[in-house]
Amino acid sequence: MCELLGMSANVPTDISFSLTGLVQRGGKTGPHKDGWGIAFYEGSGLRVFHDPAPGVESKIAEFVRKLPIKSETVISHIRKANRGKVELKNTHPFVREFWGSYWTFAHNGQFKGIKEESLGDFKPVGTTDSEYAFCWLLGKLKKKFPDRPRNEAELFRAILKFVTELRTKGVSNLLFSDSKNLYAFCSTKLSWITRKSPFGKARLLDADLTVDFRKVTRPGDIVTVIATQPLTSNEEWNPFSPGEFQVWRKGRIVFSNA
Amino acid sequence: MCELLGMSANVPTDISFSLTGLVQRGGKTGPHKDGWGIAFYEGSGLRVFHDPAPGVESKIAEFVRKLPIKSETVISHIRKANRGKVELKNTHPFVREFWGSYWTFAHNGQFKGIKEESLGDFKPVGTTDSEYAFCWLLGKLKKKFPDRPRNEAELFRAILKFVTELRTKGVSNLLFSDSKNLYAFCSTKLSWITRKSPFGKARLLDADLTVDFRKVTRPGDIVTVIATQPLTSNEEWNPFSPGEFQVWRKGRIVFSNA
Repeated sequence: MCELLGMSANVPTDISFSLTGLVQRGGKTGPHKDGWGIAFYEGSGLRVFHDPAPGVESKIAEFVRKLPIKSETVISHIRKANRGKVELKNTHPFVREFWGSYWTFAHNGQFKGIKEESLGDFKPVGTTDSEYAFCWLLGKLKKKFPDRPRNEAELFRAILKFVTELRTKGVSNLLFSDSKNLYAFCSTKLSWITRKSPFGKARLLDADLTVDFRKVTRPGDIVTVIATQPLTSNEEWNPFSPGEFQVWRKGRIVFSNA
Repeated sequence: MCELLGMSANVPTDISFSLTGLVQRGGKTGPHKDGWGIAFYEGSGLRVFHDPAPGVESKIAEFVRKLPIKSETVISHIRKANRGKVELKNTHPFVREFWGSYWTFAHNGQFKGIKEESLGDFKPVGTTDSEYAFCWLLGKLKKKFPDRPRNEAELFRAILKFVTELRTKGVSNLLFSDSKNLYAFCSTKLSWITRKSPFGKARLLDADLTVDFRKVTRPGDIVTVIATQPLTSNEEWNPFSPGEFQVWRKGRIVFSNA
């Protein structure tokens, strides 16, 4: 299994604090030592860093935390391999261009029989069931909508239908994005928290680190963080229900089936 | 205009030396200060680093040179913007998955009228003529070969036909790769050098740096470097002829129209 981390914010925000917590679980406070990756959107541009090394030892993770990169939408993943060898091509998040946008996808769980499903225009490069499921999902969407539908609710309902179908094939906690929205689907375990004014302090569960958000934010900032398990010990995270699908944009929820 | 750098090697090789020379031209010894990027293949896996900052000042460039990453196939690009704003999404090399492989593409030059050409399945995310041309090229290949042809010469001849067509639209010095091969097309300016046993010393043109390849190689190593302009002052680089197309694999040339 793996752990997921996502962020949606209304201003470019650095995710160093949450990432510091997450990567501890990549070999130190958690067993997810089979690589890690992170995708940062800057507008419709994308930066992705992948490392098959454990997150806690990764020079790339250290560099990314120190830079730090500010982004409105972030997806990160630390991996405990079950399907597919530990190598670069099997490291989440996966990326594809679709409808003229970069889509990224990270998965916590395991599918059974997904590779017997036929694919459309998108093909996996690696050998994970996760990347295969991503290609399957995009292929389904492309077949249904050769161009991006103008009605976003129509798009969200179609995605919900397909991810609900994925869930019948196994544990499928998902975070993905098309640069505009952050999509989150919970099959078994996922939590979210929105931080906004009045901001307070937060203390990491996995490292001895506290941040005072009053000092690093402005009053209008809205930042939502989604993670497999809460990352802080003194804040109240909201658990997803199994089967719940949420769409976030600029820190605010824009669609939910709950 | 921009400058290109490519490498094809038969063993994972670090490109720090050449990259050190190239990034000087990104704002110091050359005017290519509108961003830079680099793609490293590890087997069929891919790492890409992009930075809209000038190469010579880029923290990411410094980090990448220090790591260093070893790879058999590398493509790098420093940008002097002519079409498309200076931003992340317009930074080469561009990436697409095609036939189950990651393709990367970097371009030196400028096209006229390319955006009037219709595209197939691949769409640009940014606004450069270069990314548009990449999408056009992949769309043409996908239309001709829905699956990768088993006969590689057939593939190479098709690529040659399409890049020769691109050349009618403007200056199109190209480096691209499908993880297996490094493709190089010269419209106006490109040079290559193959380093192999007996190795010697090389001195950069753009920085006060000399490397003794005898100390960092093994006798069987074969490393080919391709660049817009020679990067070293004491070695003999081979200029491409205008219209020349070369395909390199593991440091050796496997196809050429020369």
